Amino acid sequence: MSGHVAVLGAGSWGTAFAKILADAGRDVTIWARRESVAEAIRSTRRNPDYLPELRLPERVTATGDAAKAISGAELVVLSVPSQTLRGNLAEWAVHLAPDATLVSLMKGIELGTTRRMSEVIVEAARVTPDRVVVVSGPNLAPEIAAEQPAATVVAGTDSRRTALVQSSIRTSYLRPYTNDDVIGCELGGAVKNVIALAYGIATAMGFGDNTRAMLMTRGLAETARLGVALGADPITFAGLAGMGDLVASCSSPLARNRTFGEHLGRGATLEQAQRATRQTAEGVKSALAVRDLARAHGVEMPITEQVERICHEGMNPRLAVDALMSRTAKPESYE
Amino acid sequence: MSGHVAVLGAGSWGTAFAKILADAGRDVTIWARRESVAEAIRSTRRNPDYLPELRLPERVTATGDAAKAISGAELVVLSVPSQTLRGNLAEWAVHLAPDATLVSLMKGIELGTTRRMSEVIVEAARVTPDRVVVVSGPNLAPEIAAEQPAATVVAGTDSRRTALVQSSIRTSYLRPYTNDDVIGCELGGAVKNVIALAYGIATAMGFGDNTRAMLMTRGLAETARLGVALGADPITFAGLAGMGDLVASCSSPLARNRTFGEHLGRGATLEQAQRATRQTAEGVKSALAVRDLARAHGVEMPITEQVERICHEGMNPRLAVDALMSRTAKPESYE
Repeated sequence: MSGHVAVLGAGSWGTAFAKILADAGRDVTIWARRESVAEAIRSTRRNPDYLPELRLPERVTATGDAAKAISGAELVVLSVPSQTLRGNLAEWAVHLAPDATLVSLMKGIELGTTRRMSEVIVEAARVTPDRVVVVSGPNLAPEIAAEQPAATVVAGTDSRRTALVQSSIRTSYLRPYTNDDVIGCELGGAVKNVIALAYGIATAMGFGDNTRAMLMTRGLAETARLGVALGADPITFAGLAGMGDLVASCSSPLARNRTFGEHLGRGATLEQAQRATRQTAEGVKSALAVRDLARAHGVEMPITEQVERICHEGMNPRLAVDALMSRTAKPESYE
Repeated sequence: MSGHVAVLGAGSWGTAFAKILADAGRDVTIWARRESVAEAIRSTRRNPDYLPELRLPERVTATGDAAKAISGAELVVLSVPSQTLRGNLAEWAVHLAPDATLVSLMKGIELGTTRRMSEVIVEAARVTPDRVVVVSGPNLAPEIAAEQPAATVVAGTDSRRTALVQSSIRTSYLRPYTNDDVIGCELGGAVKNVIALAYGIATAMGFGDNTRAMLMTRGLAETARLGVALGADPITFAGLAGMGDLVASCSSPLARNRTFGEHLGRGATLEQAQRATRQTAEGVKSALAVRDLARAHGVEMPITEQVERICHEGMNPRLAVDALMSRTAKPESYE
């Protein structure tokens, strides 16, 4: 393989992904927003801010200069906060090699535009959609860093590019599966944060495994309904980027959206939960964006609607449960 | 509605299901194998052996005489151990009302014949398949008894009968969805026990949420592959009787198959695990039956194969993990 890989963003998933690429035999340059972090990675082989226990392989280097990371890169991996992607990429696009493949690790929907991350990439970098590949699945970064067995999905419309990314991240501990359903994979990753909030809320309210399994399954069913309306394959939601990612995000007691939801389920307001966790969980923003997307396409998403009301309209979670359970009984299908 | 409901089997799910039916307004007669249990239910309104904290509603009575329970029953709910179903039902069939609907709560595959429970019912009771309705979903009995919100699937080919069962179990805490895919619902329930064993094995080996989410998702994918070969709809496996039941069974630390798997994952032999848990988990038997069914239909089920080897051929779980992770990288689809 020719050309190195640029990983833009030195958060925990970007850092773990750099390790995967290097372990699969690729030369990697991480771009960190702060030069001090890049310098620390170069001199200590560790990212002081994320996964500090992970010693990065020799093939990984780092820079604070995005142009330097991007120039000549065969793969450009994007792992920046979703709402900053458009602005960053507009600046970086000029440095892209003409045939570079853009790989998205980001899970979210742009506020205001309701665009998926791959759509933002196409618009901001002015590339054709076939140049974008999405990687998504049950991939909690600390477990990847510890080389625990995992699987992921590499989704794209150009099979040469998905095969290239697949072979660039295949290691003894990671099994990448290819899929051509970009919409389904991205939507699964975005809506799972909303469902993980619901899971956390239910957990804090004292509900057990039946209730939580129902929320996950029906949450995935409403995600699939939206997906079908947007052109996704419903089967994708039963896969690693749908069910897999959802289950891992809900099960992990460390997952941010679940934890945030637990605060809400104990009766905290949005502001109180934000203060307690010192952040706004991705699902809080996504609940609004997903609800808007669903309404625009005439798709019923009852769980998302209730999460949005709890987050943004101060609704009592107990009333949300009553509202969900008193809906008319239906067939199970997605239509 | 005319006619009472017979619930045959006074285990924990049969007992909780009697409560649901009564709460939905049906008169219920539980058949218990031992007359002493039936007498206790009649006199104390509690089943001394299962869910003893549950006070059964007034509409529930009990008998040790199966003929008495079955005669005149509009719905006959079957909740006996799966390997005893054929023998029991052959005896009971003569008492069935001509148009009685048979409702299966059982999850398993008959050893030797590899028949699903609804198939055993059709053969042993000599009824047409449309008279059988399957209820399956994430329904841990103790949580149902506590009236925690839950959902389930009512599957059958005769929509009048599925609607009858649906309305007979609709309560403030249970949402029944209908589905016409009997094969998919039953297969989901049977194979989930095998996957829950794998989940327990992985848990005891120290693997985290990525690995376990991968096992659940890829386990469900191989179940769906088998389902498609048998005539099921792959979407069913993303639903409550597939993913939902699987997630609840794996998540609950009390679930039997998961616990049994944890013993195996710590290096116990099958015999040691049986001694420690004083039983054989359903998945141990199902692993053999499912593997046979898969081989007969030329379907690859790599996770089931490894579980079968660990259970019945003394294979080291660590070698099973290596075997799963070293398979060639593939597209994610079910075909």
